[in-house]
Parts: sequence; structure tokens; C-alpha cells
Amino acid sequence: MGTKITGVGSYIPTGVAPNNQFEQNSFYTEDGSRFDNENTVIIEKFKAITGISERRYIKDHLNTSDIAFFAAEKAIADAKIDPETLDYIIVANNYGDVKHNLQQSDSVPSLGSRVKHHLKIKNPYCVAYDLMFGCPGWVEAMITAHAYLESGMAKKCLVIGAEALSRVIDQHDRDSMIYSDGAGAVIVESSNDPDCGILAHKSATYALDEAHFIYFGESNNQELNDARRYIKMYGRKIYNFALSNVPEAMKTCLDESDVDISELKKIFIHQANEKMDEAIIKRFFKLYGMEAPEGVMPMTINKLGNSSVATVPTLYDLVLKNKLEGHSITKGDIVMFASVGAGMNINAIVYKL
Amino acid sequence: MGTKITGVGSYIPTGVAPNNQFEQNSFYTEDGSRFDNENTVIIEKFKAITGISERRYIKDHLNTSDIAFFAAEKAIADAKIDPETLDYIIVANNYGDVKHNLQQSDSVPSLGSRVKHHLKIKNPYCVAYDLMFGCPGWVEAMITAHAYLESGMAKKCLVIGAEALSRVIDQHDRDSMIYSDGAGAVIVESSNDPDCGILAHKSATYALDEAHFIYFGESNNQELNDARRYIKMYGRKIYNFALSNVPEAMKTCLDESDVDISELKKIFIHQANEKMDEAIIKRFFKLYGMEAPEGVMPMTINKLGNSSVATVPTLYDLVLKNKLEGHSITKGDIVMFASVGAGMNINAIVYKL
Repeated sequence: MGTKITGVGSYIPTGVAPNNQFEQNSFYTEDGSRFDNENTVIIEKFKAITGISERRYIKDHLNTSDIAFFAAEKAIADAKIDPETLDYIIVANNYGDVKHNLQQSDSVPSLGSRVKHHLKIKNPYCVAYDLMFGCPGWVEAMITAHAYLESGMAKKCLVIGAEALSRVIDQHDRDSMIYSDGAGAVIVESSNDPDCGILAHKSATYALDEAHFIYFGESNNQELNDARRYIKMYGRKIYNFALSNVPEAMKTCLDESDVDISELKKIFIHQANEKMDEAIIKRFFKLYGMEAPEGVMPMTINKLGNSSVATVPTLYDLVLKNKLEGHSITKGDIVMFASVGAGMNINAIVYKL
Repeated sequence: MGTKITGVGSYIPTGVAPNNQFEQNSFYTEDGSRFDNENTVIIEKFKAITGISERRYIKDHLNTSDIAFFAAEKAIADAKIDPETLDYIIVANNYGDVKHNLQQSDSVPSLGSRVKHHLKIKNPYCVAYDLMFGCPGWVEAMITAHAYLESGMAKKCLVIGAEALSRVIDQHDRDSMIYSDGAGAVIVESSNDPDCGILAHKSATYALDEAHFIYFGESNNQELNDARRYIKMYGRKIYNFALSNVPEAMKTCLDESDVDISELKKIFIHQANEKMDEAIIKRFFKLYGMEAPEGVMPMTINKLGNSSVATVPTLYDLVLKNKLEGHSITKGDIVMFASVGAGMNINAIVYKL
């Protein structure tokens, strides 16, 4: 039995926030002091490292569960399935629904229940829940769906990654410019074709020294004197951690799949930071004594930013539907999904279309 | 291959909050009006329905992830395993860590990562994440661990249910008296004995009309004029929903296990409300034309309240360790775990010791 993706959909928020939108922000360092540089210089440097020129934010009236639903609808239509036949809805997310102008996360009922509600699914045996695993949550939810299919507990699952990081960013932190909103979804089904589907997967959690590299912390603007917390990260530590551990995890996964590196058509990697992603891919191929082939790593970070759990399924959707210039995949191609993020978690899947 | 519980542990918070602690509260109805009755009358009526005379709250310096860790440590010691050999840590919870005197949920990193950090586990291939499925989250996490074991993806999992509802209660809502804090954990391992372990399981999500029966809402005290949200429920709707659906789900699960109702030694049901639990069990046995046998349903709600995902594993721990008077179980006994809660979700497992 194989685990096959039979439908894909994504929702890219319509609100475009270009870099110049941050020119009037008052940025502070972690210890609360101001930067020596002008904002234009800070933003230019930010763009050079992350590759981000703009990001997407959801409209004020929307929440993470709404965009999860939008992506889910498209994946269901793409798979041409009756949603009543779904056995599971798994929504990877990390902050629940954080309403515009409110600060609390709302995760009861789960976003899975909210999506199921929006989809108007009657079948009670379509089980809906949320999975929290940092940015690699969607890939992990895929692996969990794979376990349900492999064990015979399910035949059809809807696996969503949705996040609205715009609701948890500190306007006084340069890093806030990285974060974006988005949702991606796939339908996975058990297939009798043993030659395609998920060929291998690998997951890891590094929580000894690394657990709090990405965390919830106060504003960099200490004058605010506010208890509100925001998404925060130790960028340099994450960069070094990712470079040390992600390529090796990807190699372990690829080796377990028995696929030769030369057969790998595309790597759909979490859109965390352009320079970091490039360095990861370079080091991954170096483990095989190779240089990274041109065009192996489609990127959307330039225009879509880092939308956490949503980046990988969104990227896959865009390439599959020929919506990302210069990239295409077709039946029989072998690709990799890979992610790294809060936890610190790393995972990868080798998948044959 | 079977899925066997090889270790159990729970943490019962040391802070005892008896009913009389609420005598000075200003209770309001859902529409913001005051009750005609004195608090002593309200509390007496509350106790008659729910069976709760006191509940447990964690100390101010603790968080949900801390008590999850306390329960995990005990389960690991009970199973006599090396924690480095764990393949998964799944923490069922619904509100993340909500620090004392703060209102935001903190779920990045996941509570799973925090527990792994506290356990000082080095092995990166011990994968830690959170699962959100309302009160039935722990039972659902058990079913997910079962899928990992059945599919060969894991051999040993730590499955925790932990919640601190004291951090999300509205002091102006009578229902706040139901909620409690706690944590329960088990180690599940794949076993070669096909005669024991998980014999059957069943899960359901009702999200068409029922999705928001338990929700996050504003204080009943409208004078507060505060955006802060709290756990809220439509008690009567939940009661009717549970009575209509839980007994049937339990029956489906038991029938799938091929176990005769007469062989069922104990039912460990989510401690939601004493009268509701009694009515569920009564109706469940009635589906088999029987009366519920004396002592089939151990209860802790009187002293421990409703600690969400923690009630079922805590109850199991207490009975297994002979810490609940009048109740005991032993190798070879067949029991059921059953739960109902936010989502609205229902699940059940038939398990042979």
C-alpha cells in the first residue's frame, strides 16, 4: 500500500505587504536599544539575507481556520472526492486562531473542527484535530496521515498547514519582516501502486539546548511595558543549527528511500530564509560529493515570506499547477519535502508522483 | 502486534480548591444578569449535578508543560524504560502554557518539546509534538500512537494528557467551578502478545451544529468591558449531545472488539459531570438490555474536578495502583477508555490488560 497525494490546494492571502511598509517602524535590538542604521539600510540588509521583498497578510476579518478552509476546499475539488468520505482532517498550526486586535489564541474547538464545520461535513467518523510541531507541522501531519493509512485505520485524509503569523509579530523586531500568512492543503489516499507515494520519511526533535531557539517573548520595545508576547527567534543559533542538522536528516531520508540523488527532481523546502535554504541545499548535495543542480529548489519566499506550516504545501501546489515560472513536475518524478523550525524540529519526506 | 500500556503516571496538583472558595464570587448568567439565588444555593445545586466538592489547581509558578513532565517522569519510571528509547512524545492539551497572571497561550515550542527538554532526552529521533482534540485528546493521542506502532513507525511512545484549566476560567461564570488542573501519562509499546492491548477503538467529530458547544468567550460580567476570553460551554446542549451519541459510540467500539459486555471490568470515562457520566453509562448498558453493574465506573470528579485531557489517564493510574477505594484491575481484565468534549469529539478504546 502506498500513500498518494490526490489533490492539492493553497490559499495565498490577498494583502500584500512590501518591505517599504516597514520603513516607519521603530526597530529595537533584543536588549532594547535602537539600531545605528536607518530603516532603509536595515531593510536592505534584511532582504539580502532572507530574499524577502514582500509578504502576505490575511484581511482583518479572517482567521487561520478560515484560510485553512479555503485551501482545503481547493484540495478537495482538485482530488475530486466527496468530503464525506474523509477519515481524518489534520490541521498543522501553532497559534490557533488569533483574531485581529486580540492577543489570545483560540484553539477550542480545534481548527480541524472549524474547518470541518465550514466544509459542512456531516459524517461523524471524519475525525478532525490539530497538530503542533513548529514550522515542520504540515510535513509531520503528512507522516501521521501516512501512519493511519499504513495501519489501515484510514483510507483518505485531508492534511492542512495554516498559519497567520501577522497576528503574533512584534512591530519593533526586525525579524517580524520574515513572517507571513498562508495555508496549503492536500488530500492523501491509500493507493495500490507500490511504486509511487511516500517512499521514506524522517523526523527529529532537538530539545536539549535548542527547545527555545524560537519562543514567545516580550516586545523589543521595552518602553511599552506590556505583558503581551510575540513570536521571537535567535536567528544566528537557528542558522547554525539548521546547517548542522538539516542536510544530514535529508540524506538519511533519501538513503532510506533507496532513491539515487540524481533522480531527485525537486526539493520543496520550508521557506525560512533564502540564504539559509541555499546553504542547506548546497551542503545536502555536498554530502553526495555533488553541486546542487540548477532549479532543484523552487522558492517563493521572495514574494510570499515565511508562512510557517503553509510554505511547503503552497510551494508544491504552485509547482504542480505550473504557477511558478521555470518549475514543473510530472507523474513519475521524485521530490522531497523538507522542513525545520520551532521545537527545534526537522523532517523530510521522499515522495514519488 | 499489540499496543500495550507498560507504564502509567499522573500528577495531581497540590492546590485544593473546595467549593466554599467560590462563595464570594459574583456569578452572572450568560446574558449578564445576576442570579436570584444566593451563592450557597448555586454551589449546592452545582454539587448535586456535577458531583464536584473540590478541584485541584496548579501553583502559580507551574505551567501545563511542567505537570505534563511530572506525569511523564512517573510513567517512564513505572515502565522501567530508558527515555532515550522513546520514538514519540505526544502531549494532548488544548490551551498550551498559560502563565499565571498572563492571558496568552504559549504553544511554541510545543509542550512536547518542553517535556522532552525537561526529561533531558538527547535522542533526536524521539519526536515530540502536541495534539488538540478537546477533552478527548488523550484518548485520541493513544489511538495515534497505536497507528504509529501498528504501521511499524514506532515501538515506544509516551502519551500525555495535561491541562491547567484554572488559567482560562471566568470567575463570574458558575461553570468555572467544574474545571480543574491535572496531568496523566502512559508509555505504550508494541507487544508480541496478540491477546492483549488495544482491541478496538472508535473516534468521531461532530462539527456541523456542535462545533461551538464549548468555545472561548468573554466574561459573563459585562461590566468588565474586557476583551479577555475564557473557556465557556452550553451545558444543556452538551448534556443532550453526549447522551444521544456517546453510548452508541461506546457500543460500536465494544462490538468491534468482539468482547462481550459482561467481560467489561471497568469503564474509565472522562470526568465531565457526575450526573452526565452516570446517565451515559446507564444508557450504554441499556443498549445491551442490561443495568450498569455496581462499581463499573470509577469516579474521581468529586475530589479532582474536570481536568480535561488528564482525567482518563489519571483515573486509570489511580485504579491500577490501587489508590481509588473499592476499585482494582489486574492482568487479563478488559476495560474501556471513553471521552467526550470540545469539537465536539467522542472516542473510546477497548483495552485488555
